[in-house]
Amino acid sequence: MFELLKTDFQTKARLGKLTTAHGVVETPVYMPVGTQASVKALDPRELLEMGTQIILGNTYHLNLRPGLDIIRVANGLHKFMNWEKPILTDSGGFQVFSLAKIRKIKPHGVEFRSHLDGSLLFLGPKEAMDIQRVLGSDIAMVFDECPPHDAPAREQRLAVERTIRWARECREQPRADGQKVFGIVQGGSNAALREECAKAIVPMEFDGYAIGGVSVGEPEPEMLKAIEFTVPHLPAHKARYAMGLGTPAQMIELIARGVDMFDCVLPTRVARNGTAFTRRGAFGIKGGAYKADFRPIEDNCDCFACKNFTRAYLRHLLNANEILGLRMVSVHNSHLFLKIMAEVRAAIAAGTFAEFYREFITNYTPSQKILAQRRRETER
Amino acid sequence: MFELLKTDFQTKARLGKLTTAHGVVETPVYMPVGTQASVKALDPRELLEMGTQIILGNTYHLNLRPGLDIIRVANGLHKFMNWEKPILTDSGGFQVFSLAKIRKIKPHGVEFRSHLDGSLLFLGPKEAMDIQRVLGSDIAMVFDECPPHDAPAREQRLAVERTIRWARECREQPRADGQKVFGIVQGGSNAALREECAKAIVPMEFDGYAIGGVSVGEPEPEMLKAIEFTVPHLPAHKARYAMGLGTPAQMIELIARGVDMFDCVLPTRVARNGTAFTRRGAFGIKGGAYKADFRPIEDNCDCFACKNFTRAYLRHLLNANEILGLRMVSVHNSHLFLKIMAEVRAAIAAGTFAEFYREFITNYTPSQKILAQRRRETER
Repeated sequence: MFELLKTDFQTKARLGKLTTAHGVVETPVYMPVGTQASVKALDPRELLEMGTQIILGNTYHLNLRPGLDIIRVANGLHKFMNWEKPILTDSGGFQVFSLAKIRKIKPHGVEFRSHLDGSLLFLGPKEAMDIQRVLGSDIAMVFDECPPHDAPAREQRLAVERTIRWARECREQPRADGQKVFGIVQGGSNAALREECAKAIVPMEFDGYAIGGVSVGEPEPEMLKAIEFTVPHLPAHKARYAMGLGTPAQMIELIARGVDMFDCVLPTRVARNGTAFTRRGAFGIKGGAYKADFRPIEDNCDCFACKNFTRAYLRHLLNANEILGLRMVSVHNSHLFLKIMAEVRAAIAAGTFAEFYREFITNYTPSQKILAQRRRETER
Repeated sequence: MFELLKTDFQTKARLGKLTTAHGVVETPVYMPVGTQASVKALDPRELLEMGTQIILGNTYHLNLRPGLDIIRVANGLHKFMNWEKPILTDSGGFQVFSLAKIRKIKPHGVEFRSHLDGSLLFLGPKEAMDIQRVLGSDIAMVFDECPPHDAPAREQRLAVERTIRWARECREQPRADGQKVFGIVQGGSNAALREECAKAIVPMEFDGYAIGGVSVGEPEPEMLKAIEFTVPHLPAHKARYAMGLGTPAQMIELIARGVDMFDCVLPTRVARNGTAFTRRGAFGIKGGAYKADFRPIEDNCDCFACKNFTRAYLRHLLNANEILGLRMVSVHNSHLFLKIMAEVRAAIAAGTFAEFYREFITNYTPSQKILAQRRRETER
């Protein structure tokens, strides 16, 4: 399924090619997130124009709404949402542990109440794989337990044990035609647990491996550690996916550490608050400084938003609660994430990724929150 | 400015051509409403694809946000919002009388408090024309007084008197290059007042004439009367514009009565609640009946929404509060209004409008509210 085309000679960055039932995905890749069968605020034409290769869908959410009966008669998620390129579906593990109310962990899954209407539901390896089979995603994820980053050691260990057991159960479930399945490594920021989990999951011979238990509230230095503790235990000939990450600079850092795939809601989520990403960091476009700024969001950007609209206009739209404002910032942000990945691939191919990395990280100013996390880490 | 190309031989329908500084507009025409410099949820490409010839902007709203200083340095509203085709701007009269808090009518305009921040503002003929000059709209509207439909007779008369006096003042104000100005006839559903107002306004030789004081909460039969009382007093060689109207069937009724131009927020406003217009009437797409309905919103519709998505998918998006849902219903509804106008123009040109009219009205089921208004009128 995964072809490793090149490994950078100075960093651990990799150039690869994922072949799926709905087409080829070049890696490193950013996957826009379409939780509820829609990448928020964007339409499929916009996604294609910005170079989207693969999007995400979500087992937990789609099972609640519209429900599997609808997706089944629609002949799968691709047809339901009119998206012909690859789809990866998350297993719902993360949502069961973060969104659902009153959950009870049982041997073969989790009993929980829907965050929408409180109805009693059950999701485990069998159910998650069954739903993903009906969704017909190109890549299904195993059902894992994803504890919060500050969970006590005992809980992290139990989560790893369940994740391993459930991965084995997922492995045995029927799949959709051509559907690939990725395993997930948990273990928090504990090196031994990460190693133990990876060493149990990898022999199960999944089609790719994800690093879960990141983007669960941990500071950036801990996230990087979790990745560094895991990657060495993953096989070189399978794709590696860091779940729920990250900012542009974080994706570059993770690529340099050997990660191939990313998904992140930031581009569309922060757009709804008027935050625009650029190659130099993010900024709030609603600020008074931009009220008569007739430049595009980012100079030399060829996205639909930057080709058509000024900061002053977008600021006005966002302040006046006009939907076009958040739409266009969503377009720009998503386009930027995808464009950076295309540049990363070109740099790895050209053997210039280390330079690209240094220049990118030098120019990029992380958010105040991330900078504070780094300071705390240095002071420790 | 207006060229009357043809008058239907069985009805009062007219085929015409409006020439403006930003291009030619074929009439009858539906004008999508971009109150705050954005047709809600739509981008300019979508507007052009659906055949939009001219859009509306609003003096009251744009003066508050982003404010004239910004529009001035942006070199006008067209450039600010990246819309190269014609724009008509409403004068703000309607908003001052419907939205603003605590207003005091003075000889040369209205003192009022902004509905946004309560700041004290003044808008009169001089101010409204000055703002529209800076906006640089192709067609500016005079500043009028627009009382509610149930205002007492004395108030209706005073409004007509002020509207006439203010129209004369507007007539004398400087304009943007090539900017045309339309007069407005008020007078509620009182035949004598409508005639009196028209007979005072028409000799002022405006570039076109609008019928105001409709779409102010009156039942449909009263609205039709207001139009019928006014049209005979308007000159044949000038364009006629029914402000704030209407549903597809109402536009067809008004075209048959000799009206050429329409603006209406319904297509985008009801879309946000999940209501879709069709040639047979409107329906709420969020209803359970559509959960596995894999037809487009309307059969044989060639809008972007109908070419790409099913009712089942749009229903899901709307119920899950996904922006793409309201976007796509806004696309379909606006496209339908524009498409019907294109078909009307073709029918008038072909001499088949009377047939088109009969068939359209026969097939179209108005809303329960409008049907109830008609029943009450018949029973009177």
